[in-house]
Amino acid sequence: MTALRNDPAAIVIDWGTTSFRAYLTTDEGKVLGSLETGDGIQSCAPGGFEQLLLGRIGIWTEAHGALPVVALGMITSRSGWVEVPYVRCPAGVDELAAGVKEVALANGSRMIFLAGLTDPTRLPFPDVMRGEETQVLGSGLDRDRTVVLPGTHSKWAEVEGGTIRRFQTFVTGEQFSLLTRHSFIARGMQPAGEADWAAFERGVRTIEENPAEADAFLSLIFSARTGMLAGELQPAEIVDYVSGLLIGLEFHQARGAGWWKDGDAIEIVGNDGLNDRYARAARLLGLEVREGSGEAAIAGALRIAVAAGLVKAPAMA
Amino acid sequence: MTALRNDPAAIVIDWGTTSFRAYLTTDEGKVLGSLETGDGIQSCAPGGFEQLLLGRIGIWTEAHGALPVVALGMITSRSGWVEVPYVRCPAGVDELAAGVKEVALANGSRMIFLAGLTDPTRLPFPDVMRGEETQVLGSGLDRDRTVVLPGTHSKWAEVEGGTIRRFQTFVTGEQFSLLTRHSFIARGMQPAGEADWAAFERGVRTIEENPAEADAFLSLIFSARTGMLAGELQPAEIVDYVSGLLIGLEFHQARGAGWWKDGDAIEIVGNDGLNDRYARAARLLGLEVREGSGEAAIAGALRIAVAAGLVKAPAMA
Repeated sequence: MTALRNDPAAIVIDWGTTSFRAYLTTDEGKVLGSLETGDGIQSCAPGGFEQLLLGRIGIWTEAHGALPVVALGMITSRSGWVEVPYVRCPAGVDELAAGVKEVALANGSRMIFLAGLTDPTRLPFPDVMRGEETQVLGSGLDRDRTVVLPGTHSKWAEVEGGTIRRFQTFVTGEQFSLLTRHSFIARGMQPAGEADWAAFERGVRTIEENPAEADAFLSLIFSARTGMLAGELQPAEIVDYVSGLLIGLEFHQARGAGWWKDGDAIEIVGNDGLNDRYARAARLLGLEVREGSGEAAIAGALRIAVAAGLVKAPAMA
Repeated sequence: MTALRNDPAAIVIDWGTTSFRAYLTTDEGKVLGSLETGDGIQSCAPGGFEQLLLGRIGIWTEAHGALPVVALGMITSRSGWVEVPYVRCPAGVDELAAGVKEVALANGSRMIFLAGLTDPTRLPFPDVMRGEETQVLGSGLDRDRTVVLPGTHSKWAEVEGGTIRRFQTFVTGEQFSLLTRHSFIARGMQPAGEADWAAFERGVRTIEENPAEADAFLSLIFSARTGMLAGELQPAEIVDYVSGLLIGLEFHQARGAGWWKDGDAIEIVGNDGLNDRYARAARLLGLEVREGSGEAAIAGALRIAVAAGLVKAPAMA
């Protein structure tokens, strides 16, 4: 049986707006091979998705035959290949498996497109995620807890009773990118080399020590300029100060929205290179932090594929 | 005496990062001529400011002689021609006049550079303005009130006892520009033609009706996408919805910072084309609105120039 545990069982595709990632994996989510290209859905003509996919994964299907394919990300959206309606929270593996859409590929493979998730309770409009739910699933639905997924559009999700019960999006990473690339902040700062953790922590503490000012984000962010004019911030510190300010703001706003209180614990899951920053900010704010896997998405996608009958369940160890 | 009231008395220069504006004015601030070019300070070599100025205003000085020149804007900053230190709040005409710096131009004119204003009480760092104080002065320091100056970096200022007592910056206009030009919002919206006031008011009301969500700006701004996904917002409505959301947020955050409460009155002064939006938002929120002049800056600059002894005080009417 040992040999079987290294057999390829599926190909998982994370196909986003600007990138194409593919993973050859065992039925337990062990990655045997991977590839990444810039073939995002925005650079692929509608109607050209299948040909592009078969070309990219040919190196694996020629060697191993018509493996089942699991797709997630923006490829499952309105602007993608097959639009899959959102599944409503609370949802676990079974609800997400019931929401997939299947197609037959020209090479004989079965392919499923995973559903995204919507939280209909969020105001003023239902919130959405498309792909991040596989990271939550892969990190496990067996323990009730709050999971934070840092990113361009980071997500806070509540795992309860084997489901994702609710979640909320914060566009923190995008704000950081806008401010440091295109705003008055971009004009005043010096590009960063290594992370300046002292400047980062100063940003987080600025939020913590000035809660009234933190509630006035449109004003507080101007501190990246006034701090320089006051001689309190150096141009080389600005990038990490702003990073700390924004991540600190996300935690401040998440606390206001009821996601945590003093002494709580959170689990940080993700692969956007931001986990370390979120963990530092959380600990500074007195949260207990569990650092989850950065590779949870593939395991989560496989769990849905198994529940949907696309991939045979792995043998028990 | 009547003829004298139309005599040129000074040239006021509003010289910013990306634009050069000049006004030929009487001693009472009546504009006799104006010109605007793209010669912002960032496109002018250090050392080249005087030559550029004299060339641009030559059409007036050749006709009327060596008129005094009053300069305001980023030309008075560290990256400008003559850096003028900020004057501290509370400050009125006399304090601002005491803070000017004077140079003699090659054509024999006297030229003063106006000081900006700093509010040392603002946290985490002192707030600053450079130019907007002339708009507040021009609109009058004789009545105690709250003055709002919409703009890329809008200002809320308290006029009390003949001074600007305190002020606060909100980078609302810049956020609007960032979000609608460079973010996920830019990708989903259709360019606007005329203002869609229904969509604008929906944005303002979204803040008013969802105060808890308004406190989580990094999350709420995602509603520009989720509203479209939910079929509640059309692509052509997004620009004005986001405009209403952001201006509504500025008022929400300004209320939280103590700038107004239900039933208060504000005066809106400015020339950035946003006064109408701010007045609409303010009235929707139950504020009483006085719409001030859009041309107050020149009158304000002249009042400082008179107090500084550069321009003779106008004869009483």
